Amino acid sequence: MRLAELGEFGLIDRIADRVAPSPTVALGIGDDAAALIPTPGSLTLITCDMLLEGVHFDLDLCDPKSLGRKSLAVNLSDLAAMGAHPRQFLLGIALPADIPLEFMDGFMAGIMEQAERFGVTLVGGDTCASKGAVAISITALGEQRPELVVKRSGASPGDGIYLSGTVGDAAAGLCQLRRGVRQGFLVRRQLDPQPRVAAGVALAEAGLASAMIDVSDGVLGDLGHICELSAVGARVELARLPLSDAYRADCGADPFAQALCGGEDYELLFCTPKGGEGEVEALFHRLGLRLSRIGEVTQGKGVRLFAPDDTPYLPTQGGFDHFG
Amino acid sequence: MRLAELGEFGLIDRIADRVAPSPTVALGIGDDAAALIPTPGSLTLITCDMLLEGVHFDLDLCDPKSLGRKSLAVNLSDLAAMGAHPRQFLLGIALPADIPLEFMDGFMAGIMEQAERFGVTLVGGDTCASKGAVAISITALGEQRPELVVKRSGASPGDGIYLSGTVGDAAAGLCQLRRGVRQGFLVRRQLDPQPRVAAGVALAEAGLASAMIDVSDGVLGDLGHICELSAVGARVELARLPLSDAYRADCGADPFAQALCGGEDYELLFCTPKGGEGEVEALFHRLGLRLSRIGEVTQGKGVRLFAPDDTPYLPTQGGFDHFG
Repeated sequence: MRLAELGEFGLIDRIADRVAPSPTVALGIGDDAAALIPTPGSLTLITCDMLLEGVHFDLDLCDPKSLGRKSLAVNLSDLAAMGAHPRQFLLGIALPADIPLEFMDGFMAGIMEQAERFGVTLVGGDTCASKGAVAISITALGEQRPELVVKRSGASPGDGIYLSGTVGDAAAGLCQLRRGVRQGFLVRRQLDPQPRVAAGVALAEAGLASAMIDVSDGVLGDLGHICELSAVGARVELARLPLSDAYRADCGADPFAQALCGGEDYELLFCTPKGGEGEVEALFHRLGLRLSRIGEVTQGKGVRLFAPDDTPYLPTQGGFDHFG
Repeated sequence: MRLAELGEFGLIDRIADRVAPSPTVALGIGDDAAALIPTPGSLTLITCDMLLEGVHFDLDLCDPKSLGRKSLAVNLSDLAAMGAHPRQFLLGIALPADIPLEFMDGFMAGIMEQAERFGVTLVGGDTCASKGAVAISITALGEQRPELVVKRSGASPGDGIYLSGTVGDAAAGLCQLRRGVRQGFLVRRQLDPQPRVAAGVALAEAGLASAMIDVSDGVLGDLGHICELSAVGARVELARLPLSDAYRADCGADPFAQALCGGEDYELLFCTPKGGEGEVEALFHRLGLRLSRIGEVTQGKGVRLFAPDDTPYLPTQGGFDHFG
């Protein structure tokens, strides 16, 4: 069956049927707008990401279900970086009318699996025909009390700089996919990133993060955003960058290039004031998540990198710029 | 200058610089997510629309500024149909890297003009490169007290069915544009629809609308949505359809086809319980907006149409279906 046979409203009904009710939603899919019930005393955190075929994903390299999971994951990752509890999301999707219905079913299965896992409810969106590529737009909403929201702008000199998980994997996984590899740790890291929701919320609620961002454009670029908005500099020791064994086996002569500049790891990069080291370590131990202190916030401007022999290191590429 | 020279972050800065602060926004553009301040006791209404080049608009037929105004208007229209006060919006836009910067400047000028007019604040979004067409995704947020929100599902037999403004104009305007006409009332109605925000809010706050929808897919299809969700039927007298003089002069032999099935008028279609006629008329008189009672909600199912001679009328086309 093709989408053209099901029709727009058949497709919307098919999607709406899979959505369970939520105490945060007064009115879900099917009206001109959804009506959400804000938690008294909380701010609403909101973020939007577009994913375009041929730019963000290639249908020859990913299955529809992974694409669904990833589309929601990248938005949940943004909420995690604010320390927010994820609540609801909207899905806009443009599809060629001749696309097999199996694509949409697989994509929605991935979306709904991820939504259930993180307790977020699909409340609306838009479906339309595309003349060419698939285009996806997701808006995700979360909540957190005002005093607990973590911004990019709160870092101070002396704060430790930390990373969850490992970096460089997703970029290496994309290279593997393009070489024809279809499985393994690095490929999974590219196709199925895990948003660090529990860690982001826990850091915020323990007051342990002075600034936080998710690593979507690469450590170097994303740490640069924290430095710019916090009006500070940073010193990073490359020997401390958390690299997976699979990445080390795959990365060639310069293990740092992709770990610094490859995007899409969706790990959390955050700063913790002096004295918080033990608490942060205990928190990540409880979560069963790897934690690495990669450097320190400094006076001044910009990110300075130091190679394992403590000599300055100059990266060969910058962070990801869509129009660069 | 091309977008490629400005870069992604240059573009975001250029956009952020135009946004004024708002008391409803704790944190705007520039972090992983925006932080909004909900009004205590209100629901958050949220809607999302995608606009794709080659599907929803043609860059040869519209100027960037009108496109910006319309992109926001279609979302504000959805909020108006719920009776919500518009508050904030997010903008996702995918652009070919070689597009002239003037396109983006014109588009943003239109968006910001509309935002200022309706008191909504741009709080975030996403910008990315497109390999081909321009793709726009807007998510708009509004607020209203729970007991005042107007749904599609509240119509009862005996309610009057009303339309704001005139219908068919936007579809006729699109036909004119395709024939090479570049100005005039119908063309303006297609390129620059006016969301009926004041009317939607006033109807909701006066408790005068039992059900409401905005006319985006055509009167027939959109009234069909109200009937389906309210589990009622409707009787519409075609002689009462509000048609503009320009439309009458342009519509050919059957004046009703486009007025019933042409989309994009973004007028409000609503139902008012018996006894509310005088109040509704007074309200629209105060707003200086045309009001037409086109029929009545009935028992049963579906929309029945009656020609001026009171014989049943069968439409030649249905409402707009993206995959149909």
